[in-house]
Amino acid sequence: MATETVNPRTDGDIGSDTDDIPLDPVFALHRGGKMEISATVPVRDAADLSLAYTPGVAEVCTAIADNPDLADDYTWTAQAVAVVTDGTAVLGLGDIGPRASLPVMEGKAILFKQFGGVDAVPIALDCRDVDEIVETVVRLAPSFGGVNLEDISAPRCFEIERRLKERLDIPVFHDDQHGTAVVTLAALRNAATLTGRRLADLRAVISGAGAAGVAIAKILLEAGVGDVAVTDRKGVVHAGRDDLNPVKRELASYTNRAGLTGSLASALAGADVFVGVSGGTVPESAVATMAKGAFVFAMANPTPEIHPDVAHRYAAVVATGRSDFPNQINNVLAFPGIFAGALQVRATAITEGMKLAAAAALAGVVADELSADRVIPSPFDPRVAPAVTAAVAAAARAEGVARR
Amino acid sequence: MATETVNPRTDGDIGSDTDDIPLDPVFALHRGGKMEISATVPVRDAADLSLAYTPGVAEVCTAIADNPDLADDYTWTAQAVAVVTDGTAVLGLGDIGPRASLPVMEGKAILFKQFGGVDAVPIALDCRDVDEIVETVVRLAPSFGGVNLEDISAPRCFEIERRLKERLDIPVFHDDQHGTAVVTLAALRNAATLTGRRLADLRAVISGAGAAGVAIAKILLEAGVGDVAVTDRKGVVHAGRDDLNPVKRELASYTNRAGLTGSLASALAGADVFVGVSGGTVPESAVATMAKGAFVFAMANPTPEIHPDVAHRYAAVVATGRSDFPNQINNVLAFPGIFAGALQVRATAITEGMKLAAAAALAGVVADELSADRVIPSPFDPRVAPAVTAAVAAAARAEGVARR
Repeated sequence: MATETVNPRTDGDIGSDTDDIPLDPVFALHRGGKMEISATVPVRDAADLSLAYTPGVAEVCTAIADNPDLADDYTWTAQAVAVVTDGTAVLGLGDIGPRASLPVMEGKAILFKQFGGVDAVPIALDCRDVDEIVETVVRLAPSFGGVNLEDISAPRCFEIERRLKERLDIPVFHDDQHGTAVVTLAALRNAATLTGRRLADLRAVISGAGAAGVAIAKILLEAGVGDVAVTDRKGVVHAGRDDLNPVKRELASYTNRAGLTGSLASALAGADVFVGVSGGTVPESAVATMAKGAFVFAMANPTPEIHPDVAHRYAAVVATGRSDFPNQINNVLAFPGIFAGALQVRATAITEGMKLAAAAALAGVVADELSADRVIPSPFDPRVAPAVTAAVAAAARAEGVARR
Repeated sequence: MATETVNPRTDGDIGSDTDDIPLDPVFALHRGGKMEISATVPVRDAADLSLAYTPGVAEVCTAIADNPDLADDYTWTAQAVAVVTDGTAVLGLGDIGPRASLPVMEGKAILFKQFGGVDAVPIALDCRDVDEIVETVVRLAPSFGGVNLEDISAPRCFEIERRLKERLDIPVFHDDQHGTAVVTLAALRNAATLTGRRLADLRAVISGAGAAGVAIAKILLEAGVGDVAVTDRKGVVHAGRDDLNPVKRELASYTNRAGLTGSLASALAGADVFVGVSGGTVPESAVATMAKGAFVFAMANPTPEIHPDVAHRYAAVVATGRSDFPNQINNVLAFPGIFAGALQVRATAITEGMKLAAAAALAGVVADELSADRVIPSPFDPRVAPAVTAAVAAAARAEGVARR
């Protein structure tokens, strides 16, 4: 019987090129990477091999060749997701390329497994052209049950996602857009419930017109928020501007019902909700002009657009992207359950209805325990992933995209 | 603390489309696939997350962006291999497409892990054009430390491998060619030792001019075998034929020193070695004409070209591809250790010298216990992978392709 006798992860010299890296806990933890493949079936002897490999495996191959849907049942692809990036918009680090993005993609992969039971594989691509990325992912698709796009810069991310959704009949989901949007909506729902307001009565201002800002604007409007204005570095995105790319021009067409044209600071005057996904800073004087009982979701990492201590002087509910303050808007609350639910019913897509259902389910987890410091569950709340998974699977069935 | 609360592998209905599949042991074992991803670091709480994911991970990304070689140390890629196929030449099943090939690719992946400690990911591509396959693999390459090409039909497999080796500075290895060739050479070395002959005195006939046949011809000649003739359906491949594709034309230029022009049967007259990688059958009357003390390696699966009972009437050493006869020529004896050795020293390629070293090391495992029924170790001999790994790593250093 063979045991695992060789381990390239730890065997061999550590080259001198690593000598200048401090042995801090982060680097120590990352040595050899953060993930591995394991067999889920025994491979101890010739009898095992004859089932899991030749000659037995040929029966399974033949059955799938005759009925391709059987690949869902007899391969790992039904729970396997490609985490695809080109490394152009990694965390707050920006365009660091595919190799340097891998630690983030591996981190994402282990969160997929830990929270959703989903097997995710980092696929960092050495190409940036939209056509090339789309074609590459289409060619890879038979190997996976879903595609999670990650850290691809705007506006290319929008077109890549749109075209992949057209081309593929498996879930395609750009987490920087929709994961953030789902969690933001969940927090906003609970903040409104807590303070006795209807979404329709709220006017929101979103700072940042990139992947997250655009997706948050869309989902807030779909959920019934009264008005949403999005700002970029030049102020409110509105139809009168002549410097808008196609994505922002479309954004201008369905946001900003109030017809604002000025700066972020001017847009905040009287606003009920601030959502920060920009990385800039907002002066306290502008926060002070927001409506009474406002919600401030200052999600930039590591430095929120408005420090929570400042925000609390004016706002009824404050959320950030950080784990060391209450109400962390963390994508891990959404993407594992969304994919787990979609994969469970073999959904052909992740629809708007599935995202809204995910947000409602996520909000519902803490519905009976709401407070200003608890409008969203902790990422480690064990109720989250099952609730999101069930809601997304049910929504997929209701929307007719479930294959089982 | 979150536990793994959702499992798309087992949750949810099994659809009616599976009702007609018999519940035999092979299908039962394959349900849900044969592999999974696991985290190798803890993800229990916010402190863990702050090291393995944000904000800690940004330090590692930044370090890799500054020094790309650090990705070898701080991501899983140094032990991660893409098992790439287009599903055009799967086992004896032929062109069954990417989805139906996946059970074989998953089987390969778990063998990589079990025997070599290598994390292998099935990548079944929905494209067949040589340019498209090459470009796709080049784009994927940042995610992996090596590429194992698998079950791609000849002659495309030769050009794909050649071009990928030119384009990439990580190991690229077509196992159907070189894995088979390494194990065949190892068995032949030991058969020669056992019977007191020199490789230079042997004349070999290879039935089959596909991936395996071409690679075996090359490695036998590199190892010093006296003469090698390769046959396809039309007989011996020789320069006088006008029906040869470019690969066979090149093959004709360096094989068949004896100038044979006839059938497989005529080539066998007086030959010392038969290597079958064709799937045809060889009549006993032809086997009877081989030289005294011949070696018959009839490796077609599931039906050897010459049944071992027949071969033993004429041959001194008999090998097959099957686990239920002695001397199984099984690629698993080679590929896990070859990749483990190459990855251990961060080799930029798998060279001819590394393959020859692998064959010598593999032969060496049973050098002190040779018999006609033991010219090659069992796939489950725990000495195999460490021996091959060490030999390949040393050869990579000797040949100047090791990066550490």
